[in-house]
Amino acid sequence: MTKLVLISSDYDMSPLGPAILAAAPELQVHHFGAPEADDAQVAVCWNPPAGALRTLPNLRLVHGIAAGVDNILRDPHFPAVPLCRVVDPYQARAMSEFVMWGALHFHRQFDQVLANQRNGLWQVPDQKRASDCAIGVMGLGEIGARVADDLLHAGFTVRGWARSVKVLAGIHTFSGRDALPAFLSGVDILVCLLPLTTETRGLLNADVLGQLRPGAKLIHVGRGEHLVMDALLAALSGGHMGGAIIDVFPNEPLPADDPLWRHPKLIVTPHMAAISSLETIGLQVAQNVRRLLRGEPLNNQVDVGQH
Amino acid sequence: MTKLVLISSDYDMSPLGPAILAAAPELQVHHFGAPEADDAQVAVCWNPPAGALRTLPNLRLVHGIAAGVDNILRDPHFPAVPLCRVVDPYQARAMSEFVMWGALHFHRQFDQVLANQRNGLWQVPDQKRASDCAIGVMGLGEIGARVADDLLHAGFTVRGWARSVKVLAGIHTFSGRDALPAFLSGVDILVCLLPLTTETRGLLNADVLGQLRPGAKLIHVGRGEHLVMDALLAALSGGHMGGAIIDVFPNEPLPADDPLWRHPKLIVTPHMAAISSLETIGLQVAQNVRRLLRGEPLNNQVDVGQH
Ligand SMILES: NC(=O)c1ccc[n+]([C@@H]2O[C@H](COP(=O)([O-])OP(=O)(O)OC[C@H]3O[C@@H](n4cnc5c(N)ncnc54)[C@H](OP(=O)(O)O)[C@@H]3O)[C@@H](O)[C@H]2O)c1
Ligand SMILES: NC(=O)c1ccc[n+]([C@@H]2O[C@H](COP(=O)([O-])OP(=O)(O)OC[C@H]3O[C@@H](n4cnc5c(N)ncnc54)[C@H](OP(=O)(O)O)[C@@H]3O)[C@@H](O)[C@H]2O)c1
Repeated sequence: MTKLVLISSDYDMSPLGPAILAAAPELQVHHFGAPEADDAQVAVCWNPPAGALRTLPNLRLVHGIAAGVDNILRDPHFPAVPLCRVVDPYQARAMSEFVMWGALHFHRQFDQVLANQRNGLWQVPDQKRASDCAIGVMGLGEIGARVADDLLHAGFTVRGWARSVKVLAGIHTFSGRDALPAFLSGVDILVCLLPLTTETRGLLNADVLGQLRPGAKLIHVGRGEHLVMDALLAALSGGHMGGAIIDVFPNEPLPADDPLWRHPKLIVTPHMAAISSLETIGLQVAQNVRRLLRGEPLNNQVDVGQH
Repeated sequence: MTKLVLISSDYDMSPLGPAILAAAPELQVHHFGAPEADDAQVAVCWNPPAGALRTLPNLRLVHGIAAGVDNILRDPHFPAVPLCRVVDPYQARAMSEFVMWGALHFHRQFDQVLANQRNGLWQVPDQKRASDCAIGVMGLGEIGARVADDLLHAGFTVRGWARSVKVLAGIHTFSGRDALPAFLSGVDILVCLLPLTTETRGLLNADVLGQLRPGAKLIHVGRGEHLVMDALLAALSGGHMGGAIIDVFPNEPLPADDPLWRHPKLIVTPHMAAISSLETIGLQVAQNVRRLLRGEPLNNQVDVGQH
């Protein structure tokens, strides 16, 4: 009998049980803390409490429920078992919708137009060509590559940055830390689609934001800890940057009295850019448990050493 | 010596003179009312005062400066000369950007998310698939066909309506008045990209809006006179419709004290969706004047009888 345990310190995991069982009725699913869960072989996690995983002696697989696994690897006692994440093709599409909305919002100056509406001000904004707007996409993985390609199709000039060398038709790509200044210079809209790792934590700092084109915008859909918020706020108030859409925060949900909600140059969204459906999570977890039991290679396994 | 006259009752035409002369320095350009303009052979117009054109005895061509020519044909004394409009390929692209922003705005519930931001409310909206959102595009001309195709590429389910039968890959098309109910039923987002003609004036009335799916949205980028504004307001307050983006109004600019600016379910934009560049207008007018003088067929001539 294969047992799964659902573990999260801050997220209601209960809808996941039925979703996993729908795909693999032969499994047993329990919540962390229930006595039946102690000998679980598989843990399905979002933000597990530090140390929880190492209390499970029979553990053979940890499975995330999202594209990012930083929420799991922040446990300093992460055990020596494989870690898999969910890669949902529709999630890349959903992210692309979100980023496209944001890019068009800035490119066609809807930020100004919506502010003008509140003042009853009829003022036609400049209509620039999308090809004159340079969008820089940080992270060219499952999601970033799709986002970059869709922005290109919409007519924008697109460049991308990743760890390794990438060849993407029509997109000027840069790789590695040394190429970061060349990637950043001239960017009008910066999109962050990096995973959170020791190398990317705090990467969006004053130095990096300062290298963007004056008036630049940020669409931040990576993880809260990528961004040094004070650096962004200084760039906005100093006038070097023109606006930002922030979907991710170090502490979510953002409290109702946080002043970020009311910042006139910020659009604050509730970590909504791209959510995997329960069905997809259930299916991918179930498939990987079966692969584990049959000794087959796992889908979407994460290279833990790189985090 | 070929003379052009610039005529508008409400729009500053002066930047157009240099744009036309840049493309055809052999021409002479004057403003309406100047004595040198009396024997002009070509009139370049936006909203010409009624009767102005018939005061020009040598007139051989009237040229618009936009895609729509309703602003010219509303003159009851429009003379018996050819009428041409401007068809700017980038204009279709600009319109597509505007409509894409609006479609994503509604599909991803940014209307609700931006309202929640004002209240510091962290609430993740449902993430539906674009393919579950049916967008209906009215008018499949130079602009509408491009808009429909881009929406399709973004994953939406797209249908279109025109006067004549159209074949557009991936798009379910309907033609003529009889097919209007079939086109409308099940539409989540209606986009109006019709020209203003006697047949389309007032077409967006209570009957038509009532046939959309409950909660439907409108993106109106045709002409102000297409829409019966009271019918839209009733559909919004009665709850049958969920929101609208309105870019065009019977009287523009919309006065600062118009209550439409403050309607919570309306986004009011300043006729900004797609503007032709001065260069494009200048070039197309210049090319058509040369064609006229050489007796060649004119580009983008309008069938006046259908308006
Ligand atoms: N806001 C939301 O709703 C939401 C939803 C889903 C995902 N996300 C975020 O999006 C991220 C990306 O997801 P994904 O599925 O596309 O991940 P992925 O497939 O792992 O791709 C990550 C990309 O980032 C690049 N990268 C990693 N470390 C880097 C470094 N130090 N310097 C430069 N580039 C680096 C990688 O380069 P190589 O290819 O060269 O390794 C890769 O191209 C997630 O980790 C998460 O943070 C947010
Ligand atoms: N808001 C803005 O900034 C902005 C900018 C540009 C244009 N516009 C608007 O967009 C309109 C369309 O421009 P366009 O260049 O695409 O025009 P177009 O090429 O003339 O296309 C018009 C389309 O509407 C269809 N149509 C006309 N009368 C109809 C009727 N009675 N019933 C059903 N369909 C009908 C036509 O059908 P057939 O093909 O069968 O004839 C055609 O597909 C302009 O007239 C203007 O109102 C707005």
